[in-house]
Amino acid sequence: VLAGPFCFSGDNVDTTIDFSKLAGLIPAVAQDGRTREVLMVGFMNPAALDATRRTGFATFYSRTRGALWMKGETSGNRLRVDRILIDCDADTVVLLVERLGDGNVCHTGSRSCFSRELSLDSRPAGEERAS
Amino acid sequence: VLAGPFCFSGDNVDTTIDFSKLAGLIPAVAQDGRTREVLMVGFMNPAALDATRRTGFATFYSRTRGALWMKGETSGNRLRVDRILIDCDADTVVLLVERLGDGNVCHTGSRSCFSRELSLDSRPAGEERAS
Repeated sequence: VLAGPFCFSGDNVDTTIDFSKLAGLIPAVAQDGRTREVLMVGFMNPAALDATRRTGFATFYSRTRGALWMKGETSGNRLRVDRILIDCDADTVVLLVERLGDGNVCHTGSRSCFSRELSLDSRPAGEERAS
Repeated sequence: VLAGPFCFSGDNVDTTIDFSKLAGLIPAVAQDGRTREVLMVGFMNPAALDATRRTGFATFYSRTRGALWMKGETSGNRLRVDRILIDCDADTVVLLVERLGDGNVCHTGSRSCFSRELSLDSRPAGEERAS
């Protein structure tokens, strides 16, 4: 499922994750392991990361509900986690996932939560302001 | 540069971004527009997002320094932003970028900051704890 031209150095280290920078949370990027689309970004506390590693299904911490939630627990659109990548600062994770259920990750019914686009300002720098 | 099998609905909307959930910041995922690797995750305040849209180079807010920083301003390894995607909640952005300079995004010299891997717990659920 996860073959591809992506070379991570891949030490399967059990690094201590730094949850201190966001009051106990880290951002967790869910990326389709096959298409490499970024599907959603959630947050994890230590319990959410532990549940994800233990169950193999992406589990986040809901800031609004103040509770863990396994993505798709109700809808069936769970995310099976194949790999967890951590960054140089050990304060962010990327989950390489397989989309289950109907494959639509977003609650709006879209495959990805990132289905809208923000314009770039095409004006040459300096046209509006001196720089 | 950004051709690919990825279909975003692509309304070029100028949505109001919600900076309220993380005390004025939003996570910003930098993804290689060609290979779709996730390269790094930083944070943006409104000024950082504005600078990114205005200059076309990824600019973040450094929480440790309390200041804006254009990625690669010193090293030359800037990230040219081709597209900015926003999520359903308008509280996270994905930057589709082109790597400039030597193409190594991470300060460790790696192409991506996500060059390490965290193990999944391969024990069957329930082996260690009742569930």
